[in-house]
Amino acid sequence: MRCEDIAARAKRASPTLGSLPTDGKNEALRALRRGLEDSSEKILKANLRDQERAEKEGLSGPLRKRLKFDGEKLREALAGIDSLIALPDPVGKVLSARELDRGLELYQVTCPIGVVGVVFESRPDALVQISSLCLKSGNAVLLKGGREAAETNRALFEAIDRAGGRAGLPPGWIGLLETRDDVTAMLALDRYIDLIVPRGSNEFVRHIMRNTTIPVMGHADGVCHIYVDGEADLELAEKVTVDAKTQYVAVCNAVETLLVHRDIAGAFLPRLKAAMDARGVELRGCPETRKIISCAAATEEDWTTEYLDLVLAVKIVGSQEEAEEHINTMGSRHTDGIITGNTARALRFMDRVDSADVFWNASTRFSDGYRYGLGAEVGISTGKLHARGPVGLEGLVVYKWRLYGSGQIVGDYASGRKSFTHRELPKKLPHGGQVGS
Amino acid sequence: MRCEDIAARAKRASPTLGSLPTDGKNEALRALRRGLEDSSEKILKANLRDQERAEKEGLSGPLRKRLKFDGEKLREALAGIDSLIALPDPVGKVLSARELDRGLELYQVTCPIGVVGVVFESRPDALVQISSLCLKSGNAVLLKGGREAAETNRALFEAIDRAGGRAGLPPGWIGLLETRDDVTAMLALDRYIDLIVPRGSNEFVRHIMRNTTIPVMGHADGVCHIYVDGEADLELAEKVTVDAKTQYVAVCNAVETLLVHRDIAGAFLPRLKAAMDARGVELRGCPETRKIISCAAATEEDWTTEYLDLVLAVKIVGSQEEAEEHINTMGSRHTDGIITGNTARALRFMDRVDSADVFWNASTRFSDGYRYGLGAEVGISTGKLHARGPVGLEGLVVYKWRLYGSGQIVGDYASGRKSFTHRELPKKLPHGGQVGS
Repeated sequence: MRCEDIAARAKRASPTLGSLPTDGKNEALRALRRGLEDSSEKILKANLRDQERAEKEGLSGPLRKRLKFDGEKLREALAGIDSLIALPDPVGKVLSARELDRGLELYQVTCPIGVVGVVFESRPDALVQISSLCLKSGNAVLLKGGREAAETNRALFEAIDRAGGRAGLPPGWIGLLETRDDVTAMLALDRYIDLIVPRGSNEFVRHIMRNTTIPVMGHADGVCHIYVDGEADLELAEKVTVDAKTQYVAVCNAVETLLVHRDIAGAFLPRLKAAMDARGVELRGCPETRKIISCAAATEEDWTTEYLDLVLAVKIVGSQEEAEEHINTMGSRHTDGIITGNTARALRFMDRVDSADVFWNASTRFSDGYRYGLGAEVGISTGKLHARGPVGLEGLVVYKWRLYGSGQIVGDYASGRKSFTHRELPKKLPHGGQVGS
Repeated sequence: MRCEDIAARAKRASPTLGSLPTDGKNEALRALRRGLEDSSEKILKANLRDQERAEKEGLSGPLRKRLKFDGEKLREALAGIDSLIALPDPVGKVLSARELDRGLELYQVTCPIGVVGVVFESRPDALVQISSLCLKSGNAVLLKGGREAAETNRALFEAIDRAGGRAGLPPGWIGLLETRDDVTAMLALDRYIDLIVPRGSNEFVRHIMRNTTIPVMGHADGVCHIYVDGEADLELAEKVTVDAKTQYVAVCNAVETLLVHRDIAGAFLPRLKAAMDARGVELRGCPETRKIISCAAATEEDWTTEYLDLVLAVKIVGSQEEAEEHINTMGSRHTDGIITGNTARALRFMDRVDSADVFWNASTRFSDGYRYGLGAEVGISTGKLHARGPVGLEGLVVYKWRLYGSGQIVGDYASGRKSFTHRELPKKLPHGGQVGS
């Protein structure tokens, strides 16, 4: 099937999917879980074939590791579905309820976004996580995985699609795209697709953002900062910075630039250097930093670079304001932290730094849907509308306004014959029960 | 000043503006109100000059009516500021609060979007409404009004800017753009501007959407529908349709297409025609409609046309599903209603129609921030992310995640030495009081 036809089918499935009651969606999630279990042999064999090809083609070790989908990974994916079933339904939540006049009631109610297109990299477990998140939030979903995992993705997709069909989900609610051309085609289908979530390299995400009028949720860069204030506990600052830099380097929430207040630089930088040297981290410093410790010189480019590697840029600042301005100018609105024992300064930093995630005395690596307790995550957003930071179920819904009348016309209010009461109502939909049930 | 410099100043003002306490913002709103009152003579004189020029240049009657800003309009604008002061602060609301572990607490808190660029048409009262909405929500704002109202806009802007300065607002929090080139320049300033709200003609809004990577909130078309079900009360259906079509024709929430169920078409269409004839409304019908009443033939183009005039397209459908599909395919996701006495059908319609505003037995003209009780509105959004329908204060904020730690590192949780508690907390920020206070 062509990409356009797959997208059109998803759009047609969307109203039915979006009005499924909670029980129906949870029942379907249980069916998906069983379907994946029943197809486990097929899935694991498909993954072995993907792995063999990857080895032949000489894929790098880390990529091959991410590609692996064994019994352990499958069990984790199934446990993920279980925890999703246990989470509350994000659809049908009444955000506000207001009587406009007698017999004229307005409800602002959450609903699915519609059709979500997700482009993800080699990890096949993302396919299970994303499709079950979309199902729970009532969204139809188009999936395009990495070429390396093609066989695994197809086996997972077939198991999910078959199980969904048996559970009565509308046909086409999930669609698999397999070629690079499909991605290009998808970017033009704004009449069928409501949201695109790209997960991949910076250039790839930027390419998507520049080439579609469909809203995009995601992040290109993750240039995260830690600012060590003059009243920081140095041991804590060292421990947090080491974790944020080295616990896992190739991720968007690892720290890339360290800002240090001048008052504390002489005491802190030598111990930082010792700790980083011990872990093979290369430091690149501003001229003032290099007067205190020996390290390479940072260029202007370093302040906006996401290394994803054992490299850390270091800059000395004369004030918190300078640190905040550096982060708001050079950063990527992802995750930025302050290390300080001074409460007022910490609060000021969290107020004024314009990032999705602002941390006080904690590693930037905590910025993650699982660690945040959101259950699964569909991605991390550095946009400033809709959803920011780790995006779980709640980022996959929006709302509509439902107005229940009894023949009211605006003419009566414009002429003054009638007037609005604008009285708050209990946040509960009339006519019992939940949307669609 | 160049557009870029004005935008850069707004960006610099943004962190200070965004962390103002509620009292500070309300105090500034009161100062704005006084400033406008004190400058009233200057403002009204400027408007007279704009009106004279408009007359000389032969502007149409409706446009000149919208341009008028007299003592009455000024009093309304001041009353609008009063009601805005009375509304709760949308910033600093704790959306969720969760303990991740002992001493590691995560708060999801609303914050301003940052810098909002608004392009609006001739009505100068929009300038007061938009700038006070942005101030209350902590957003810096760039304003570009219609050329016709240039003198009025400048007088209003100067009064607001001067009053804001005296009230201690950061310089540059409000900026006035005056040329068409400024709009073009604005669309490229994605490093300074976080959101663009265009208010104007369909082509203008579409032009903006296609020519910027900055998120745009607004609507191009408003092709609104009313579907008259087989169990509709015909008198109610007539009354609501007449109001939705004729109460004010040149607006986005007026009905443009009427869908009628086949079972009731023979009884309803003749009385509809009589009512519409009496009000000078031209009907354009599908072939089946024209077998029942005499009217012009609708073409394919009619189903997607926003007339903004005394014209109504009429189509007979064989089922509610057909009506829903017509609306979801031909409509513009703005406001669509069903007229029926059947509760189950009404709920189904509201569930399945994918529009910002879905109405049951009420005129589409109710779709408006003032009527909804939102206070003022910055615009109406037909997008499917962030804010839908009439957008008031709450559509001008987003959230950030604030993590309060005590030295926690991810390594401890990854290794299993520690584990997450993920316990819900009261929705109240630690360290007392509100953000920024």
